[in-house]
Amino acid sequence: MINGGGGRKAAVGVAGAGLIGGSIALAAHERGFALTVYDPYADLEGKVPEGITVAPDLAALAVDAEILLLATPLGALAHVGRQLAGLVSGDVIVSDVGSVKGDIALGLAAGFAGRAEYVPSHPMAGSEQHGWAAARPSMFEETTVIVCPEFATKPASVGKLEAFWGALGGKTIQLSVAEHDRYVAAVSHLPHALAAALVELVGAEIPEALSVVGPGFRDATRIASGAPRLWTEILLANRSAVAGYLEMYGARLDRLRTALAECDHKYLEGLLDAGKRNRDRLNF
Amino acid sequence: MINGGGGRKAAVGVAGAGLIGGSIALAAHERGFALTVYDPYADLEGKVPEGITVAPDLAALAVDAEILLLATPLGALAHVGRQLAGLVSGDVIVSDVGSVKGDIALGLAAGFAGRAEYVPSHPMAGSEQHGWAAARPSMFEETTVIVCPEFATKPASVGKLEAFWGALGGKTIQLSVAEHDRYVAAVSHLPHALAAALVELVGAEIPEALSVVGPGFRDATRIASGAPRLWTEILLANRSAVAGYLEMYGARLDRLRTALAECDHKYLEGLLDAGKRNRDRLNF
Repeated sequence: MINGGGGRKAAVGVAGAGLIGGSIALAAHERGFALTVYDPYADLEGKVPEGITVAPDLAALAVDAEILLLATPLGALAHVGRQLAGLVSGDVIVSDVGSVKGDIALGLAAGFAGRAEYVPSHPMAGSEQHGWAAARPSMFEETTVIVCPEFATKPASVGKLEAFWGALGGKTIQLSVAEHDRYVAAVSHLPHALAAALVELVGAEIPEALSVVGPGFRDATRIASGAPRLWTEILLANRSAVAGYLEMYGARLDRLRTALAECDHKYLEGLLDAGKRNRDRLNF
Repeated sequence: MINGGGGRKAAVGVAGAGLIGGSIALAAHERGFALTVYDPYADLEGKVPEGITVAPDLAALAVDAEILLLATPLGALAHVGRQLAGLVSGDVIVSDVGSVKGDIALGLAAGFAGRAEYVPSHPMAGSEQHGWAAARPSMFEETTVIVCPEFATKPASVGKLEAFWGALGGKTIQLSVAEHDRYVAAVSHLPHALAAALVELVGAEIPEALSVVGPGFRDATRIASGAPRLWTEILLANRSAVAGYLEMYGARLDRLRTALAECDHKYLEGLLDAGKRNRDRLNF
């Protein structure tokens, strides 16, 4: 299913050679796919393993690709998608790895309609680092990859993209674009904003306490080292869902303050217990 | 300085054989201290390395100890301290490893006055696990250990306790009891409450999203797996400082919601940037 013609593996093009795009390229190359990458902002000279082609422009990236992955920053997706839409045709499968779908995915779907099979995806991988230098071929092993099937005109296209992610070690799950954005608002975008606000608060109100932090604080705030510009784009692109969860969260913090003021042992233990039960379910 | 008489290392007693007490015992035993442990609730039969003595009661723990570490749950410290105060005398150094000092430390200081040198300490170590089975001798390597010198009548007592923690791999820092409680409210207790509230929210509002979480959510919420009863005690014992930081944090979240509603790119990037700068300073 992920093979091209003649028994060979599919030709894959990756636009954007950052942490995720670079990891896709390295992982797929290692697994025998024919890889071409393109990134107008990354100097890949001498950094790309032998056998990966660096394309000079989007046209060269698109010309032979059977699967095209858009791994640019969120704010560049619409622009790159518009350019690519004029360069592809037929059965080529186009996916993006944007952290928000919403209007961006609707725009890409409209642009690729009749020209390519557009299937948004989102690997729940990454780190606070960025750029090709931080990319690694093991990035997607045991990683959940969300795939949104709603714009595909042939079920085989979704299957082919899922098989590609599966070949890279990912475990795919199908969600609608709307479900995707709600899920990640709660488990990715809200936590990112909360971690940033926590570190900002400590730095502003009691910076001397940063000298005594332990592993709990370190792990709880690691994501706050993510790139501010990329994350600003993400939070704004999903702002209504994020704001909704922020409001629910704020109500919980108000209730927590009341419980502290009233020495409400029962409420506090109930909250911590619910947190522990749900966290323990993750089992990793 | 941390030697007892005759060139041998000091005799150390540990009350409470949980994660921290057990790790102290294992770490100090490995480094040549003479170790005795006591825990009325832990069945240590066959689980303690040869050479560590298990005391049948507090009197047996105290009889020969030159350094006594109280590593019980916070709620048991006052009671155990009162019993021990009747069993010690002279130059014995007593410390606790409680996560909150405040009134508990004041009570212990009053109880030990004239009977022992009481020097509160707090290793910023631990994990979401608990009990002797999770204890490990490397627990304090490169760990910041807060030591509060204000109740000691001789500077040498503080130095001796710092040298003990140093021998276990810790890096000590002296803070007053009041400073300790403010610092850890910001970088330990607040983060714990925030993580618990986040996981509780996701579990209550959108539990299906727990099936797609990535490494960011996992790390940000790991501490939420801590023992609810222990952490309820901690939050209540330090409730005024925790509530103060919660209020400041809530104000930041309100401001964040406004920024999302107004698409305030500049504010959001400023917040994320401040978070990143402070987090990157931690350098680990």
